[in-house]
Order: sequence, then structure tokens, then C-alpha cells
Amino acid sequence: MIKVGNLVGGIWQTNPKAKTFQTANPKTKKSILYQFEEANKDQIDQAVKKASSVFESFSETSFSKRIEFLQEIQKQLNQKKGEILNIYQLESAFSGARAEGEFQRTLGQIQEFIELLNLGSFINPIINTNGPDLRKMLFPIGPIAVFGASNFPLAFSTAGGDTISAFAAGCPVIVKAHPFHAGTSALVAEAILNAIEYCSLPLEIFSHLGGISYNVGSELVNHLALKGVGFTGSFVGGKALYDLAQKREEPIPVFAEMGSVNPIFVTETRLENDKNLSDTLAQSIVLGTGQFCTNPGIIIFCDSKDKSDIVKQVNQKFKQIELPPMVHLNIESNYLKKIEDLKNIKGLKIYKQSENIAALGLISASVLLENKELVDEVFGPFSLFVKCSSIEQMSELAKIIPGQLTGTVLSDKNEQVGLKKLVNQIKNKVGRLLFEGVPTGVAVTKAMQHGGPYPASTDGRFTSVGTDSIYRWLRPIVFQDCPNVLLPSALKDKNPLAIERSVNGQMTKKAI
Amino acid sequence: MIKVGNLVGGIWQTNPKAKTFQTANPKTKKSILYQFEEANKDQIDQAVKKASSVFESFSETSFSKRIEFLQEIQKQLNQKKGEILNIYQLESAFSGARAEGEFQRTLGQIQEFIELLNLGSFINPIINTNGPDLRKMLFPIGPIAVFGASNFPLAFSTAGGDTISAFAAGCPVIVKAHPFHAGTSALVAEAILNAIEYCSLPLEIFSHLGGISYNVGSELVNHLALKGVGFTGSFVGGKALYDLAQKREEPIPVFAEMGSVNPIFVTETRLENDKNLSDTLAQSIVLGTGQFCTNPGIIIFCDSKDKSDIVKQVNQKFKQIELPPMVHLNIESNYLKKIEDLKNIKGLKIYKQSENIAALGLISASVLLENKELVDEVFGPFSLFVKCSSIEQMSELAKIIPGQLTGTVLSDKNEQVGLKKLVNQIKNKVGRLLFEGVPTGVAVTKAMQHGGPYPASTDGRFTSVGTDSIYRWLRPIVFQDCPNVLLPSALKDKNPLAIERSVNGQMTKKAI
Repeated sequence: MIKVGNLVGGIWQTNPKAKTFQTANPKTKKSILYQFEEANKDQIDQAVKKASSVFESFSETSFSKRIEFLQEIQKQLNQKKGEILNIYQLESAFSGARAEGEFQRTLGQIQEFIELLNLGSFINPIINTNGPDLRKMLFPIGPIAVFGASNFPLAFSTAGGDTISAFAAGCPVIVKAHPFHAGTSALVAEAILNAIEYCSLPLEIFSHLGGISYNVGSELVNHLALKGVGFTGSFVGGKALYDLAQKREEPIPVFAEMGSVNPIFVTETRLENDKNLSDTLAQSIVLGTGQFCTNPGIIIFCDSKDKSDIVKQVNQKFKQIELPPMVHLNIESNYLKKIEDLKNIKGLKIYKQSENIAALGLISASVLLENKELVDEVFGPFSLFVKCSSIEQMSELAKIIPGQLTGTVLSDKNEQVGLKKLVNQIKNKVGRLLFEGVPTGVAVTKAMQHGGPYPASTDGRFTSVGTDSIYRWLRPIVFQDCPNVLLPSALKDKNPLAIERSVNGQMTKKAI
Repeated sequence: MIKVGNLVGGIWQTNPKAKTFQTANPKTKKSILYQFEEANKDQIDQAVKKASSVFESFSETSFSKRIEFLQEIQKQLNQKKGEILNIYQLESAFSGARAEGEFQRTLGQIQEFIELLNLGSFINPIINTNGPDLRKMLFPIGPIAVFGASNFPLAFSTAGGDTISAFAAGCPVIVKAHPFHAGTSALVAEAILNAIEYCSLPLEIFSHLGGISYNVGSELVNHLALKGVGFTGSFVGGKALYDLAQKREEPIPVFAEMGSVNPIFVTETRLENDKNLSDTLAQSIVLGTGQFCTNPGIIIFCDSKDKSDIVKQVNQKFKQIELPPMVHLNIESNYLKKIEDLKNIKGLKIYKQSENIAALGLISASVLLENKELVDEVFGPFSLFVKCSSIEQMSELAKIIPGQLTGTVLSDKNEQVGLKKLVNQIKNKVGRLLFEGVPTGVAVTKAMQHGGPYPASTDGRFTSVGTDSIYRWLRPIVFQDCPNVLLPSALKDKNPLAIERSVNGQMTKKAI
């Protein structure tokens, strides 16, 4: 049995007395041949203190140094690719194609931040020389804790968007590995550590802590020297961390992306005319075995003549799909239990074929309005179809839906003008509003918004996907009448970084 | 006795059963001839519900409509100027010059937002047409509660930066008037109401609630339909509102600017050579009778030869200054009691002349390091001078100082390079770092940052002064594959607003 310790301030520590745990293949139900040590209180304390001790020096590294670092992480990941994808598939039972896709996405995300650093203007330099000489830009806030997500062992975990955006910002990172893929996480941590060593950066900028106990996360979030938290996962987990962080002597921001039901609204015309609709919906509902944050959990459709068999059609599609298991046995059994429980709701019909665990519910708008708790997420390959008789009824439903990551309106071109009111209502409930396709699949670009009003996320003003996610870890500082010799490069008269700056109201790369 | 009711959703309500209170002139100690009604639970509920009911329509008003509204507020304030300045001086005992200055600043702040709306690009349109068509911009978050500040009856109150930035963003506003200047506040509210009527905007976008009980504020912050809070005042008040807001079923952002001691660091060379230093410091310490958020409460100076009499000099300057009273009798008596209490601290010498309430303390760095609670703010015209024997000792002190709105480094030109380490330490504790002059006096521009790390404010990533303060009330929403007919004007292909947009990575005003 191979033992895996904790990476504390860039140094692997083993602790013979540590509580240990294992990961298991959700398909074969067999344990993987590693024993992971849970980090203890002292190791958590050391990790954050060490991160804090190097914060000032790391925060002052040049953009070019950070680019070198991120490029080296890409290289190190590529060097370990075989090993990483191997254990990734053992721990998740995801397909080779999914593994390769998520690996490339992870590299691609890093590339986006490399390009952001290359442009350099993300720190928003604003200079005003009329009146007092004021020069403002964004600076990193301090050590950040990143919680690995269960559903994306690579892209939302150890070297995922949270970690990379924090490093790009100039913040040290302490990763709390997700226990379901602790092996994948440890290998990726090793790649990051190699990159730190290769670039001669302070080892203390990175820690990787394991654990299955709630304590590990809570000790970490409660540490006085920690300045921010990134989390992707369940509402219960995210809200608990948020509450802890707000009760600290010094409250700190927690960016918890807690998923949602991502409602899809289908007009009657679209329902009648879109031949691909059942296929499109079926594919989206089962994508990643229904574990994507943007999984469509509610389909609100207008069927005034009560003649559509869309639910049956989607259920039929399910029969032809081979579905990998969910990421953990407990998660899957919770999911199946919830589906069973739903069968007890009066007026709700469950469609469940025997070929896989995907399932559907059908309910009328009026029954949903009387059972508002049904808008809560059922995590897994399930979607609740809600039948309406008019656009007005869809609008009524839009009112009761809480904050969402996404909302989708599928309609016919000719009726779009008439949907303005409904669209505005949905808009105020979501972070992303789609008019074609399905919410699963999130483009990683500057224009993306992944984060919506509470309870979809704890702070809908920020995104956890795309380069704008860096703004979670930055805050403005203004220098007044500061001599050039003490100014950061981005604010010096000569603009040595040659970045776009706002100077007396004009965007320019020119020197002052 | 004239009774003043509450403005609830744009309609003045009187309530014979209401609890009432009065304002008093802090100089003459005489009550002003008005009785103000405290808002009851039902009125608070109505105010927020009405604000919420018109949020969608107000959020869609064009920038030109919002410009018209802000310009009309300026006009209405000017029309009522005589009345407003009259009651302002009665309630605050501030001088005519201060009244005029704050009135003009208030108009000037509104002008800054008019110009921001005129440019239009503050909503950060980001368009990406490669891959899925993604178009992101910022939208208002919903009804905002604004708490009037005690120390700025106009510029940080009813038509102050919080209210105006929220209106400019497209958010309805519920003002909780500060009870010390309820009359000034009611007159300004009347001006805003007139502007709403003149512009035919929904009356419900504005409410003005009075009260001296803690309940009024807590009911307001706890209202489910409220989406954000702006506050300027004490740590105790701001933190209480913050905690309430975080315990709600749906937590909401609270931007509390809670003041700080705004440390000034003076090097030995500067201390020896700056002939104006005592005068500069004396003027800054007593400005606004020491009630500015940026009042310098700690002066850390290096005097290795122990020969400077800077404290005596500043104290001498105080004798020549005529000082208006603090904004309220209770605040002034609290202040004077604190000065008396400080006399009991071993190693702390108090300088207090008899001409006015200004006072100074003198302490050595080592004594301060043993009495860290002395870095807490003494609200009023007081400053604690801390004598150091070296730059290293100043650096030790910089470490123990909590988050601040500002920090100031006064040095000689020739020694600036050697101050890099100290400057970096201070930088990480503040929102604004000054190298000349004093922190009192805050320029209202886009480059300003007024807000620092906790406990100076509850969210140091945002500012409460300058046009960037609008970002407190906005959040991004992205439209994916949205037909032009349903897109907001700022995101339409033709760019009908002719604003700067990021299109596929390039800033441009061109159509797509």
C-alpha cells in the first residue's frame, strides 16, 4: 500500500499517526492502491502561515515570471499526462475521451491566463494627474484556499480555474483536495510543485492538503491568515464554508459556486417544430452523468393543447445511452433515493427506464406552484418537466425560481419580440441566459459568466470560469503623489510594461 | 411643532401613533422645531416591496433618462439650497463655508455620475462572437438601502455618493436618514422626489425613512426583497448591519465604510527638515472637528536622537484654532471620556490645551507594541504620536496595524528608495497610500479608492467614493446566442449607444 502525505508549504510531509482514507473506482467499487493521510491542525496552520509569509514577495513577481510559472505547470502536467489520466479514470470511472477532454480544457484554461498576463491590463491601471496625482491598480489579496470539486477532478480542482486564477493574480494557494479523487489531485500537486521548483519561486506559495473530515476545511477557512476561498460543489457544503468565513473575526470572501437547476423554457411553437428537441435535451441531461453545474434540472414547456409526448420521447432516448456511474457510490445512492421519494408527490409522474440511472419527472405548473420545494436541485441525470398552458404561466414559474447559474429560452424566431417580459424576468434570476442549445458546456473566455444570484453562488458579481475569475482575488489600491521610484511598474510614468492604461480618462499605452 | 413623516415609495405618510424624535444644534444645544416620525415595520415593508415592484422597469431605463434624472436632482437641490444650508447648519453647527463646500461637493459627485452615464461604457460590454455568441455586460442588482452618515449630512447621506451611484446603476433606493440631521435629510429627500415626479419615473424607486431605534435599520436590512446596503459610520454600526445581512436566508452585500486611524509615517529626515509639518498635521487632525473618515489618528515618527518636540508644536497650533462642536452632544462626551481614560495608560502622555477639545497623545513604539488596543480609533480631533528609534521599528508597527482606509509616508526625496520594504508593508494594509500631504480630503474621481482591508471597510475590493463606487450595485449577465431584438441596446450588433465595447478582444465603438 502506497502512502500519500500532505504537501505543506511546498514540502511533502508524512505523518505515521495520521488518519488515512482511500479512493475507490465507482464502477468496479474497488479501492485504489493508495492510502491518503488527512492533514492535521498543525499542518493546516503551517500551510497558511507559510503562504502568508511569502505573500508579499510572491505578490510582487512580474507578470513574465508568472507566465513562466504557468507555462511550466502546463509542461509538468503534460509530462505526467499518462499517469494523471490513468488514475483519473480509476478514481472517476469517466471515459478516456472525457479524461482527455478535461485534461485539454485544464491546459487551455491555463493558456487563457497566460494570455491575460501577457496583455497585462487586467489590473486596470487608472491614472489621474489633474489635482492630486492618483494612480490606482489591482493587487492580490493574500493566501487563497481552493476546494477541489467532485465533478471535475482536473478542470475545477488542483490546477483548475480557481488555483490558476489565484496564482495569476499573485496569491499563494492552499488546495484542499477532494477525497473522491485524492490520487489525481496529488499527482497534479506534484506537477505544480515541480513547476515552482523549476521557476525558483518560494515553495511556500503552494500546499496540498488531504482529508475526508469536515474539520480539515473548517480549520482552513477559519485560519486568520487566509484571505479568500474558492469552492465548487453542493449548496450545503458551500453555504457552510460561507457561514464560517462570515463569522470569523475578520470576515473573508467565499466564492462558492453551488449549482442550480438551470431552467429551460420551451415555447409551444418550438416544442411542435424542433425535431431534435428530445435528443438535445436527453444528451444535456445525462452529460457527465448529470453532474455538470449547468445540468438542466427543470424543463418548463408550453403545451396548451396537451398533446406533446416530449417526456416520453426523452425517456426513450435515454434507453440508447450508456451511462457511467456517478462520481461516488454514496452520491449515486442519494440520487436514486431522491428519485424514489419523488414518486410520493401527488401529481408528479416519474419516468425511469431500466437501462441506466437517468430519470425524468412530469408535473403541471399548478402542482409545482403548490410544491415550490420541487425547484430544488436533484443532483444527477434527472430533469423535471413542467407543463404550462400559456406564456403567462411560464412567467409565473419564472417568479418562484431562485437564483440560477443559467436560464435558457428555446423559441421560434417569429415569436421572440413577444417574449421580452419573460426574458427580462429570467434575466434577473441568472448569470447566463441562453437562446439556443443547452446550458451544459461552458466556454472559457473573457465574455463568460459562470455564477448567478444566490443560491446559485454566494456572490453573483463574480465568475468562476473565464479570465474574469481573477477579479475574485484582487483589490484596488491607489497611490497618491507617489515618487516614480516607489511606484509599481504598471503605474510608472514611462509605462515600462507597455500595457493599456486609463490616463486622465483616455485609454493609452503611451508614457506620461 | 412641524411634524415630518416618512416617504414610503414616493408618498409622504404621516402616522399619528408614530414614535417621534427631534434634532438639536450641537452648539446651542437647542432642539430644532421639527418632530420626526420613526418608520414602523409596515412602512419599512412597504418601502422595500414597492422598490422591488418597480426594479425591473427602473433597471431598464436608458442612460439618457438616468442623466435627466440626476440633472433634475441637481436642479432641485439648487432650488432648495437656501433652506437646505440653513437647516444643515442648525443641525450640525458646521460653518457656512463647510456647508457650501459640502453642498458643491454633493452636486459635483452627481456630475461625475452624469458624465459616467454619458460615456456609457461603465457597464463593461464584452462581446465574443467566436464560438458561441457571448455578450456580457453589468446589470443592477436590485433595491439598495443607504444609511446616512453622521459626519457628512449631504455628501455621504440622502443624495450622497451611495444613493446617486445606486440610481445611476439603475437600482431603487431606500434611505435610512441619520437622526442627527433628519431635517436636512428630509429636505434633500423632497428634492429627489420632485426630480422623480418631474422625470415621470416610478415614485416607488425612492423611500426616505426616519428613526432613532436600531430596529428601523435592522428591519430594513432583514427585508427579503433588499439586495444591497451602503453604510458610512462606526465599526460597531457597520459590523452589526454586516452580520445581520450575512445571517439572512439570502445573504446580501453590505458595503460598510467604518473609518480607521489612517496612520502617517514620518521619517527622521522629514521630521527635522519639514518646517510646515506641525501646521499640516494640526490642520488635518482638527478638520471637521476630527470627524473625517480619513482623519489621521496615529502619527508614527522616527526620532532616534529623542530631540523632537513635534507633539508640543502641534498642541501649540491647536490653541489658535476655533473648533466647532462634534456633530452630537453624546459623540462629544464619548470622545472626551476616552481622552480621560487614555490618561490611565502607563507610558502614554496626553497633551490637551484648554482652548478647544482637540488633544494629542505621545507614546513610545515599545509601549504601543505592548498595548495593541491603542491602534483602535478615538473618533474625534485626537491623534496618537508614536515615537520610534528606527525605520525597522516603524516596520514592526506597520505589521500590527489592522486594515486602513489610508496610510501616509512622509519622507525626504533622497531616502525614498530605502523605504521600499516599509512602503510594501503599509500598501498591503490600506486602500490609499499617500506620499505627500495628509489623508483628509478625498478627490472624487475614477482613480480614487476609498475603502480598505477589513476592518476599515467590510469589502476592500470596492470604493464608496468616486465613480467606481457604482460597481457595488452591478453584476454581470451574459447572453448566449441571443437574437438582436431581445438584446439590451449596449450589446446589439449596431452599437446604437455608440459606447466603447470589447469585441473579440479589441476595444471599439464600431458595429459588429
